[in-house]
Amino acid sequence: MIEALDKAAILAEALPYIREFSGATVVIKFGGNAIHDAKGQDTAIDLFAEDVVLMRLVGMNPVVVHGGGPQISALMDRFGKKPEFVDGLRVTDAETMEIVRMALLGQVNRELVSAINRHGPFAVGVSGEDAGLLTVQTRDPRLGFVGDVTAVRPDVIHDLTRNECIPVVATLGVDDSGQVHNVNADAVAAAIAEALGAEKLVYLTNVPGIYRDFSDKTSLISEIDAAGLDALVQSGAVSEGMIPKIRSCIDAVAGGVRRAHILDGRLPHALLLEFFTRSGVGTMVMP
Amino acid sequence: MIEALDKAAILAEALPYIREFSGATVVIKFGGNAIHDAKGQDTAIDLFAEDVVLMRLVGMNPVVVHGGGPQISALMDRFGKKPEFVDGLRVTDAETMEIVRMALLGQVNRELVSAINRHGPFAVGVSGEDAGLLTVQTRDPRLGFVGDVTAVRPDVIHDLTRNECIPVVATLGVDDSGQVHNVNADAVAAAIAEALGAEKLVYLTNVPGIYRDFSDKTSLISEIDAAGLDALVQSGAVSEGMIPKIRSCIDAVAGGVRRAHILDGRLPHALLLEFFTRSGVGTMVMP
Amino acid sequence: MIEALDKAAILAEALPYIREFSGATVVIKFGGNAIHDAKGQDTAIDLFAEDVVLMRLVGMNPVVVHGGGPQISALMDRFGKKPEFVDGLRVTDAETMEIVRMALLGQVNRELVSAINRHGPFAVGVSGEDAGLLTVQTRDPRLGFVGDVTAVRPDVIHDLTRNECIPVVATLGVDDSGQVHNVNADAVAAAIAEALGAEKLVYLTNVPGIYRDFSDKTSLISEIDAAGLDALVQSGAVSEGMIPKIRSCIDAVAGGVRRAHILDGRLPHALLLEFFTRSGVGTMVMP
Amino acid sequence: MIEALDKAAILAEALPYIREFSGATVVIKFGGNAIHDAKGQDTAIDLFAEDVVLMRLVGMNPVVVHGGGPQISALMDRFGKKPEFVDGLRVTDAETMEIVRMALLGQVNRELVSAINRHGPFAVGVSGEDAGLLTVQTRDPRLGFVGDVTAVRPDVIHDLTRNECIPVVATLGVDDSGQVHNVNADAVAAAIAEALGAEKLVYLTNVPGIYRDFSDKTSLISEIDAAGLDALVQSGAVSEGMIPKIRSCIDAVAGGVRRAHILDGRLPHALLLEFFTRSGVGTMVMP
Amino acid sequence: MIEALDKAAILAEALPYIREFSGATVVIKFGGNAIHDAKGQDTAIDLFAEDVVLMRLVGMNPVVVHGGGPQISALMDRFGKKPEFVDGLRVTDAETMEIVRMALLGQVNRELVSAINRHGPFAVGVSGEDAGLLTVQTRDPRLGFVGDVTAVRPDVIHDLTRNECIPVVATLGVDDSGQVHNVNADAVAAAIAEALGAEKLVYLTNVPGIYRDFSDKTSLISEIDAAGLDALVQSGAVSEGMIPKIRSCIDAVAGGVRRAHILDGRLPHALLLEFFTRSGVGTMVMP
Amino acid sequence: MIEALDKAAILAEALPYIREFSGATVVIKFGGNAIHDAKGQDTAIDLFAEDVVLMRLVGMNPVVVHGGGPQISALMDRFGKKPEFVDGLRVTDAETMEIVRMALLGQVNRELVSAINRHGPFAVGVSGEDAGLLTVQTRDPRLGFVGDVTAVRPDVIHDLTRNECIPVVATLGVDDSGQVHNVNADAVAAAIAEALGAEKLVYLTNVPGIYRDFSDKTSLISEIDAAGLDALVQSGAVSEGMIPKIRSCIDAVAGGVRRAHILDGRLPHALLLEFFTRSGVGTMVMP
Repeated sequence: MIEALDKAAILAEALPYIREFSGATVVIKFGGNAIHDAKGQDTAIDLFAEDVVLMRLVGMNPVVVHGGGPQISALMDRFGKKPEFVDGLRVTDAETMEIVRMALLGQVNRELVSAINRHGPFAVGVSGEDAGLLTVQTRDPRLGFVGDVTAVRPDVIHDLTRNECIPVVATLGVDDSGQVHNVNADAVAAAIAEALGAEKLVYLTNVPGIYRDFSDKTSLISEIDAAGLDALVQSGAVSEGMIPKIRSCIDAVAGGVRRAHILDGRLPHALLLEFFTRSGVGTMVMP
Repeated sequence: MIEALDKAAILAEALPYIREFSGATVVIKFGGNAIHDAKGQDTAIDLFAEDVVLMRLVGMNPVVVHGGGPQISALMDRFGKKPEFVDGLRVTDAETMEIVRMALLGQVNRELVSAINRHGPFAVGVSGEDAGLLTVQTRDPRLGFVGDVTAVRPDVIHDLTRNECIPVVATLGVDDSGQVHNVNADAVAAAIAEALGAEKLVYLTNVPGIYRDFSDKTSLISEIDAAGLDALVQSGAVSEGMIPKIRSCIDAVAGGVRRAHILDGRLPHALLLEFFTRSGVGTMVMP
Repeated sequence: MIEALDKAAILAEALPYIREFSGATVVIKFGGNAIHDAKGQDTAIDLFAEDVVLMRLVGMNPVVVHGGGPQISALMDRFGKKPEFVDGLRVTDAETMEIVRMALLGQVNRELVSAINRHGPFAVGVSGEDAGLLTVQTRDPRLGFVGDVTAVRPDVIHDLTRNECIPVVATLGVDDSGQVHNVNADAVAAAIAEALGAEKLVYLTNVPGIYRDFSDKTSLISEIDAAGLDALVQSGAVSEGMIPKIRSCIDAVAGGVRRAHILDGRLPHALLLEFFTRSGVGTMVMP
Repeated sequence: MIEALDKAAILAEALPYIREFSGATVVIKFGGNAIHDAKGQDTAIDLFAEDVVLMRLVGMNPVVVHGGGPQISALMDRFGKKPEFVDGLRVTDAETMEIVRMALLGQVNRELVSAINRHGPFAVGVSGEDAGLLTVQTRDPRLGFVGDVTAVRPDVIHDLTRNECIPVVATLGVDDSGQVHNVNADAVAAAIAEALGAEKLVYLTNVPGIYRDFSDKTSLISEIDAAGLDALVQSGAVSEGMIPKIRSCIDAVAGGVRRAHILDGRLPHALLLEFFTRSGVGTMVMP
Repeated sequence: MIEALDKAAILAEALPYIREFSGATVVIKFGGNAIHDAKGQDTAIDLFAEDVVLMRLVGMNPVVVHGGGPQISALMDRFGKKPEFVDGLRVTDAETMEIVRMALLGQVNRELVSAINRHGPFAVGVSGEDAGLLTVQTRDPRLGFVGDVTAVRPDVIHDLTRNECIPVVATLGVDDSGQVHNVNADAVAAAIAEALGAEKLVYLTNVPGIYRDFSDKTSLISEIDAAGLDALVQSGAVSEGMIPKIRSCIDAVAGGVRRAHILDGRLPHALLLEFFTRSGVGTMVMP
Repeated sequence: MIEALDKAAILAEALPYIREFSGATVVIKFGGNAIHDAKGQDTAIDLFAEDVVLMRLVGMNPVVVHGGGPQISALMDRFGKKPEFVDGLRVTDAETMEIVRMALLGQVNRELVSAINRHGPFAVGVSGEDAGLLTVQTRDPRLGFVGDVTAVRPDVIHDLTRNECIPVVATLGVDDSGQVHNVNADAVAAAIAEALGAEKLVYLTNVPGIYRDFSDKTSLISEIDAAGLDALVQSGAVSEGMIPKIRSCIDAVAGGVRRAHILDGRLPHALLLEFFTRSGVGTMVMP
């Protein structure tokens, strides 16, 4: 019986967190890398699905946003299509755009929807093209169909969360002429979180969080405010690769999102640990 | 980190149960004895409150029903009032009725409301007299103001659960002339569960459940249907004191309640164990 | 037939008042003294119940607030508990607090609910402890559990009036630690009236109203504004005992209540006379 | 003060009636004669308006239906138009139909709307032609545009009562070809009462009610059921002129209307007397 | 098949207009002259009815406002009543007012309701007297019961459009004493359009629109803003008879109506041409 | 001006059809062939999008269902994947299933959503996997992941049409184990039409309709009932390739769909012609 009582105690420990986050909208960016890892480990995506469904069941409104860099690259490879680059950024021509759509909507989006729906009819796949969700403009003609978000029309997301569904959003957007573009998923997650007035924006990454000094693994930051984070970036202490994600965090909390989190998606049930136990994980950014 | 991962796993284990019971109405009879024990142990009532609030937060509609025999007796004693009995049943004259109201509404009901509301503005005390909730008729003139439920008007309970409150019901009822009566709490719990179309009716008692042979502590019944339970009562294998509660269980499942449970209220977090872990406790009665 | 025609004419006379007050929320403070009188006269509480039900039926939202000083004293006496005083104010220790709860919730509240519900399933007893209705802070440590209202969460009252029920509120409140306190009923009535945005706040007292000179019974004031009333208090013309009630009236109209009334609760159907006939009674306070 | 107390007592006497009729839909046929009398007495229509507004304010849903025989005749006379008759029934040719519309919609309907609206923005004039309210078929080609109701589409009436308006219905109807017809107002009142599922249908007439023997003024019937009334008609004891109205009463209660009333509209405040005092007036017909 | 394809192309051409005007409220002033013409041509009023119903079916909220000058004059003539004038304006004494009501409500309003309802149960006749729609004050005692709008209470119109009905409003109004007045229909249309926050106000007239120089038939203005229109009036280039209508247009767009239109009501399907084809007709006034 | 008047007349001709179909749910199967044609002609898919948007704007609820046979084949070809067949039916192994998802969700679904959304934020892409829309069972193990619909959960479609969106459904379904399957689009369209209680089910094909004798091009059937159609199939007069579509029509009208239509999708604006002009096209099947 000992074990049973421990279980009950742990459930009871979650009580104040469940109460606090009841009704909260949480936008979770799930990276293509994480799915890729999932393939290897075979259960990581399933653990993620469990976390998201549990969040839904205890009254939160999770919204999943995903990219799919590795899957796009792999599919281009199968088509024998060579990537081109301008200033280190991939060019998205019309043919690449077709492959992007197939990879995001035909593969990544579906794996996520499928994993979640093994627990019930919760997930609905959404493209940023649907019902005017994401309007974009071309970032740079040399990059082709790569867009920056200019407007978010979150009605379709609201309708889904109101009906207790879990939207799973692929980060495509449409410009004023109706041309579809690929959009950076980190930026989309922040823009949707702002447009929804979300309480939380979560980036599931493959690092434990933000380090005060990224060469010193003991310097992980647990909480930091936007100003402090900005100073850290200015000081050059942050690894290059994290900067776009960090910028999105700063933008989001400036735009009204209450908390942004960078969590280690490789940790099983990272979302549950962060939200429902005293053992918070990763870095939390406050306004 | 080990411990944290275990915690997350236990939360995830609760997922299918939370999903299954989402939206379910659960009527929980909490006995005066349990409160009395609580006084001794000082935390039993608080553990109960935690369980009920957690049920509310994960989307269930708990409704608490309570009596207060020990508290009534104690208060009569303080007033120097001697109990009278007819055929072993306590007579409730006008003066006793006044004491019953004070004990139930001024003491027991308030202790429960207070313990629950330490977690947030959830609980609302309700008397069976409010808004026509319980209509009764006098059982036997020799017993005085002791009533049997003839009608339940569950609107006030529905309004409260719809607004995500937790009703805490004291088992008083009113006859057609407007005279208040004391009512047996086990019977009220069953009647309210039926009127609400509840999924579950739970009796928190001070025994581990129903025994196939009450002198044999290894014969605890985990699941039984109404017919089997009826046969058991007929066979004389059930202890005298459990018979009213068992009758209420049989009535409730006959009246549309999907499951009735007899749990050991002395076990910490008995409700969480029964509802959210694989380690079910006590006896479950099915139609 | 003559008499019948007169009746019809009187009903028709009520027409403009019913039209004017349709949908208006009216908070009525009913004093423990009034109930005490009721006991003597046996029908005063019934006449009050008729008035409140009629107000409800013609579309007003009456909310009853009550204290119970005499009942608390009587119950302390029965328990052989001696009152203690600090600067003339009664000390409420833990034992007294238990008695207060029994007197207010087990006696006074129930008598009011019961009298109203003889006309239909209208009344619902509410404690200021329910669903976070009244938050208080301790007034003075020497007085024990005597609280001043710091916040009102009127959701439970709104839900009840929206469902055409009549809330009957006992004036207990809870501090941030969850400890219940006794609260002055006049102040609670004013605070609830403000929180509800009530059109009217009515004090049923055992005097005919406010006198310009309380030693001169011909100087009854029919209408006065808050400034005038304040000046009157400053001038010393008001009897000591009326000052807290008068202060509550001034506060309430300052806080948005449109009219505060001091009526003579000893007059049969005082509420009907004031609200539905040309013969207004008592004193009306305007902003 | 005596008088004030009497007033309050009379208001309180209305309490059980107001409670009983709360939410009830009452269709009231107001005859053209009554308006004609009103012209003479100058206040009868105003007293009627007061009654209807008071019914509205205490939560009933009054619906007024009117004809206008005398007004039509008077207007024909002004136009120098001679009435024609077939078997004693007036022929309604196209020109007469134009006059009917002017008399009903331009005169009678407006007088009623105007009298009611002196008490607030309650009344809305409605023609049976509006939004498909009354569909009719021609009764007899020789009579011209005289119709019998074949279908009622009560949506427009429901919308108005739901918005707490008082519909005032002129009894015109449209056949399948779109041709407007004049319709008997007694029959329309019964048909609308049935279609609305009304609790009551009231005919305001210029007689005190139905007599068991119409030559014996002491034989007024206070209550009678449909079967008894039918027998009375068969027996020939009823005056010829009352038979259509009596037939409508029998039809209405057969069609689900709970009570039909024949009241003396010449009595001031006849509706208030009947509905809100112990002194019921006229004859009530039950199923 | 050629013809069918052309039809489909024309329907498809309407697509952007239907999309643009979906949900838009459009107040249409239909003049008594137009009805008079309709009598002659026999189908003009039917074509108008088709247009209004089609607007309703594609999701617009049309509201029809009408006067009836010619019909009033004709009816006065039949009654042998001589019109009187003060400064060229007709005096409306009590007898004239009775005739106005009969002409507007008994004739014009009914012809419009009837024509529309041949397509389904859409139209509901409304008088400005209903439910407080139009409050007026007397313009000039010498003119008798001629009123200027002082307040609009558009609830009854909103309720009808929300229920997908088409209100047909006769331009009568009531002063504070309850006295009905005749009101200029052009002014009423503008006042109702403002009160409803209408997107469009349309005057159907018997001229092709506004001319830059009314003696030059080639100078028709297609679009003009309020300032330009005001300048045109000041310059004296506008025909005297158009000035009140033009003033109403200027007032309406100043009061928040997005567009005012003066169309030639003699053109078949003028409303469809203006709203659903590239071939706009008449003059459009912008803020 | 002539042309303008003709346009108006054609719009007016649509009036009775728009009225009749207002609020009707119409499920339209759009075949992969049609898109393929569209590629060639470049505008066919755009004309289809215009039709669907116009149907939406005039108050119908269009739901688009699509397959994508040609696109799947083309994509398999690009991947160098050879189709296998069993009894003439294509085997869908795991790798093929991946390609099916990419072709349907990454290509066909997006082309339709994109074409519709050029007219406004209407279309939302939906997979039968979303929120439990389509539950299937494996048809024949030898065919691999080819499913037959066993249950439809139309909530997500209802939510979208209620919010005035146009769902575009790709015909994938999930079995009880969570495995995705490809499903025949004709059958899905019929199943969804039944589950929605649709008024109409439309198959856009590349034939003019059903022929009484398919070798005789003059024998096109305009209307036929289910029994007649069944007899025609039995008689062998129907071309082999049409039989599955015809079976779906018969099933759908048996299952409550009011009308099933087989239209020639190659005709520009075929939907507008069929629904909004007198020139119906294709074959209509009635119960």
